[in-house]
Amino acid sequence: MLIFHHKLNGVLLEKADTLIYGCTVLPMNGKYFIEDGAIAIKDGKIVFVGKASLVTSIKAENRINAKGKVAMPGLINCHTHAPMTLFRGFAEDKPLTVWLREAIWPLEAKLRAEDVYVGALLGCLEMIKSGTTCFADMYFHEEIVARAVEQSRIRAALAQGIIEAGNKELGRKMFRESVGFAKKFNGHADGRITVLLGPHAVYSCSQDLLREVSEKASELGVGVHMHLAESKEILQGVSEVEFLEEIGFFKSCVLAAHCINLTENDMHILSKRGVNVVHVPVANMKLGLGAARIKDLISLGVNVCLGTDGPASNNTLDMFETVKFAALLQKLTYMNPTVLSAYEVLKMATMNGAKALGLADKVGSLEIGKRADLILIDFSKSHLKPLHDVFASLVYSARGSDVDTVIVDGKIIMENRHVKSLDEISIIEEAEKTAADLLAR
Amino acid sequence: MLIFHHKLNGVLLEKADTLIYGCTVLPMNGKYFIEDGAIAIKDGKIVFVGKASLVTSIKAENRINAKGKVAMPGLINCHTHAPMTLFRGFAEDKPLTVWLREAIWPLEAKLRAEDVYVGALLGCLEMIKSGTTCFADMYFHEEIVARAVEQSRIRAALAQGIIEAGNKELGRKMFRESVGFAKKFNGHADGRITVLLGPHAVYSCSQDLLREVSEKASELGVGVHMHLAESKEILQGVSEVEFLEEIGFFKSCVLAAHCINLTENDMHILSKRGVNVVHVPVANMKLGLGAARIKDLISLGVNVCLGTDGPASNNTLDMFETVKFAALLQKLTYMNPTVLSAYEVLKMATMNGAKALGLADKVGSLEIGKRADLILIDFSKSHLKPLHDVFASLVYSARGSDVDTVIVDGKIIMENRHVKSLDEISIIEEAEKTAADLLAR
Repeated sequence: MLIFHHKLNGVLLEKADTLIYGCTVLPMNGKYFIEDGAIAIKDGKIVFVGKASLVTSIKAENRINAKGKVAMPGLINCHTHAPMTLFRGFAEDKPLTVWLREAIWPLEAKLRAEDVYVGALLGCLEMIKSGTTCFADMYFHEEIVARAVEQSRIRAALAQGIIEAGNKELGRKMFRESVGFAKKFNGHADGRITVLLGPHAVYSCSQDLLREVSEKASELGVGVHMHLAESKEILQGVSEVEFLEEIGFFKSCVLAAHCINLTENDMHILSKRGVNVVHVPVANMKLGLGAARIKDLISLGVNVCLGTDGPASNNTLDMFETVKFAALLQKLTYMNPTVLSAYEVLKMATMNGAKALGLADKVGSLEIGKRADLILIDFSKSHLKPLHDVFASLVYSARGSDVDTVIVDGKIIMENRHVKSLDEISIIEEAEKTAADLLAR
Repeated sequence: MLIFHHKLNGVLLEKADTLIYGCTVLPMNGKYFIEDGAIAIKDGKIVFVGKASLVTSIKAENRINAKGKVAMPGLINCHTHAPMTLFRGFAEDKPLTVWLREAIWPLEAKLRAEDVYVGALLGCLEMIKSGTTCFADMYFHEEIVARAVEQSRIRAALAQGIIEAGNKELGRKMFRESVGFAKKFNGHADGRITVLLGPHAVYSCSQDLLREVSEKASELGVGVHMHLAESKEILQGVSEVEFLEEIGFFKSCVLAAHCINLTENDMHILSKRGVNVVHVPVANMKLGLGAARIKDLISLGVNVCLGTDGPASNNTLDMFETVKFAALLQKLTYMNPTVLSAYEVLKMATMNGAKALGLADKVGSLEIGKRADLILIDFSKSHLKPLHDVFASLVYSARGSDVDTVIVDGKIIMENRHVKSLDEISIIEEAEKTAADLLAR
């Protein structure tokens, strides 16, 4: 008990804004949990994590009796394109190039800023309802995504996408916009929004542009969010990773999604350069692209986190699902059930995600001094009974729909599955209208 | 419209027991759906499937306005060990043999009939809550599982397990019990229970015993439920499938779970002998056993259905999850996103399952004259919006928790997620007590 007790201070003992008590608490800064635990929140920050018996006398505006629930850090989705909710289920079971060329790109060409807003709101809604408190997004009209993030009260690391695709003019324009977005929106929405630059991929941006992006990111002190080694593309005889290494790209802090097709040398480069790898198991399987070798990356010390990808290739934003897919896909890939334990994969979905987004000191675990981003999961349901192992139950049995309460930056944004920050019905109606209109254009 | 209209008759037009209307109906006897559809049920049977506008004047005791919902046949789980809910999350991330020898078998040795009852009830509850209306079970004390099935009002094809494991005496005893169970329980619970014989696997039963099981099954006119080619076991230089072929085992109607490790010749034998293959993607991945080559089996004309396996190796009984895993695992295995379309995998979870259990004339699709086993899925939720493709949405986005209403044999056993046939809270309490007691024994 002492490990928590000594951190109590006078202020806390008197008053908090929110006190959650009676639940099992998984701080996720180590493989342990606290039964009959409590979390106290003041001014958006966690001011107590420990046994509920230590804070019985505390006064709090919101007292949440969380008996029968599990409290843990909110899940962090490190790679998505949230506005693509609008394309969910559109053009299914097709090869990647057909899907992109004949379905997704023609629709995206017709996308207006107001469509992106509706799609992003629907994405934020879906993420909140399934326990995600922070996401890394890369898309067009990212300033509109920022508006949706601000409104929904979720946390996000946003990047305006840059695609050159052989058109230098276009590349320069998108680069300027990505930089402009980053300068304007870093720290936006009371600090809940942070930014990255968003070069789409090695094959869609030129060497010169990638070099500039990397230099600019270092200059601005922000990271770079990109797709890496998703397909088997080879550039001038070297792998994508070798190519980026050669041009010095990894001097900036890189968030690299997918990383399926890596040589051993590639893995060593990613490790040496401290690249953050986002594993995206559901979309990688759905598009038949292959399985990243996450166990190898982890054993080389690479920080691996998780992402859903856009809902057009998943088709959800449900990180609980991604957590289960990630664990099972690694066990299959290595034909070994001991690979990627339940605790390890939950860490990927929380603390490793926070690290990857440069938010390790802010979120990702339940610790005194961190911002209060956390979720309560209702463990009263039949598929979670009996409870032998809380980590295994969260990974192998729990569902996004079991998330009952979501708190971001200390604010309760969902309680008893009711989202407080957004009007669910009107967002859904708008999204349906927008999707129909988009198809008719 | 005519395809449905001509099937209407005088009796139906006057009165039904239950009328469901306003929903999108997926009959699953072809790749089509009916918008603003209706289903009428009388005496447990489907008496109408078609446009709601055709049955506006019909009288019915229960009128269910299902606007915004999707109606489809209930899902059929073709391989599980339902009472193993008690072991959910017990001993995780361990190699198969350690898991079995050090965790599962010692616990099973302590299992009493009353424990199996509680575990089976919890399993039935979980299945109903996630849209399964019929399951194939193999375990010990199967007469107790039958009691749980009768009480919960679900449908099931049950097999008392037979394990010889080198002990001829034990083998003969379990064989007699499996036959005794089959004779006693076929057609039980108003016909909702059918039976199979349950030889555990090739490696756990002798050649003589397997031959006798096969002959007895043919004599009784029942099928055989077993594990097949789950591991890489080789017997006397031949594969498990070749071995069974040589001893004439496939003369009986076989439901073979897993079928991961098959040679091309094995696949041809399964096809030639009309063996029904149960694909079990979640448990196969979780235990690191490999991926069955379902596309190849289908192209050889094999009837492939789906199963969850027991909740100790899954760790749920959620067929919606299994449907998504099945589709994605095949796309990954063949590195091709066009493999196993959404419609095909839904057919595996419904009609193919009915065929595999010898229930094709009774359930598996929504057709006039079939028993009314169906589910309503609530499509109002954010992760199911917008709706571009109902088949894709059911496979890639829907969750067991989106199932709103469950009807088995014409009876509404869940409505608005409230299970009517079982007392949810007391079952969960009993299961927790039983699991704790089991560990303490």
